[in-house]
Amino acid sequence: MKIVVVGATGTIGRAVTQALGSRHEIVKVGNTRGDLQVDITDAASIRALFQRTGRFDALICTAGKVHFGEFSKITEKEMQIGLKDKLMGQVNLVLIGRDHMNDGGSFTLTAGVLSQEPIRYGACASLVNGALESFTRAAAVELTRGLRINVVSPGVLVESLPTFGEYFRGHEAVPGARVANAYVKSVEGLLTGQVLQVL
Amino acid sequence: MKIVVVGATGTIGRAVTQALGSRHEIVKVGNTRGDLQVDITDAASIRALFQRTGRFDALICTAGKVHFGEFSKITEKEMQIGLKDKLMGQVNLVLIGRDHMNDGGSFTLTAGVLSQEPIRYGACASLVNGALESFTRAAAVELTRGLRINVVSPGVLVESLPTFGEYFRGHEAVPGARVANAYVKSVEGLLTGQVLQVL
Repeated sequence: MKIVVVGATGTIGRAVTQALGSRHEIVKVGNTRGDLQVDITDAASIRALFQRTGRFDALICTAGKVHFGEFSKITEKEMQIGLKDKLMGQVNLVLIGRDHMNDGGSFTLTAGVLSQEPIRYGACASLVNGALESFTRAAAVELTRGLRINVVSPGVLVESLPTFGEYFRGHEAVPGARVANAYVKSVEGLLTGQVLQVL
Repeated sequence: MKIVVVGATGTIGRAVTQALGSRHEIVKVGNTRGDLQVDITDAASIRALFQRTGRFDALICTAGKVHFGEFSKITEKEMQIGLKDKLMGQVNLVLIGRDHMNDGGSFTLTAGVLSQEPIRYGACASLVNGALESFTRAAAVELTRGLRINVVSPGVLVESLPTFGEYFRGHEAVPGARVANAYVKSVEGLLTGQVLQVL
């Protein structure tokens, strides 16, 4: 399969690329690094990306920014960061990417445990992750040509504990390699409309 | 209690107002009707609303538009309708309204069954409803001064069947009066961070 991985140079993206790379052709896409670059907040940039990738069999997105901060100070503008980046960035990869995907192909997006288990400073992330999970359920029932879509919803990564650990005290951290498995299951299996929790 | 009901002139809003009106002071807010008007897509309009309501004990929102349409044709622009209206309209009522709410007050927002059970044409609604449910869980854990927040997530209303029934075949429709009960439970009880499904 030809698999486009957006966010390939990030923590999850690297693990996913390693898990799939021996059996498939991987197009590594980053914001500033990788084989190709994309700004997922910009539909024109996404369209330009797919002109360069050509047709493909699977698209994985492990990219997406959200604002973290104290809820009492969160503004509409800070909410918009995640809406434009992690949420609509991934949604637009689907809305635009579907026309470049071969029949029977799959999208695999990334949400996260905060949709179900909120933490301090995490309201924007929770909102965005919940939106992605419900979007995935809905898109799956209307996609045509055998296209599939799933979303991986991981807990905090072991590899991210040095940076984010203090906000996830008591959470069982999951190794990147275990999270990567969920993407493999989505791409190489036949599931669709699923929230693949890795906790 | 002094309760601000945004969307008071809609199907759910009328039922909520009837259920709470005998025991509480209700400020009925509509888009074009009601005691006061607001455009929830406009933060300035929301701020102006709260200047007119003065301080209050509960805010209920039963308003919010989303685009319905075939997924294969949905554009980013159509997705934005729901993000701006039903999603960020309600989120902004919380972000702005919290400063006008008395200690121990409550927000009660409105999502819907499509967060969990997608239907044809419903991808935008699913995304928005999922976002609202997860936002509610997260906001609840960080709200201060004893403020609470819940979201009611109803199935299709009996009263809406003449308009929307064909899209919800097989769904058990719920009467407005039953849905209104969930808002009463949120406002007069002590729950917080809950998705109150009415199915």
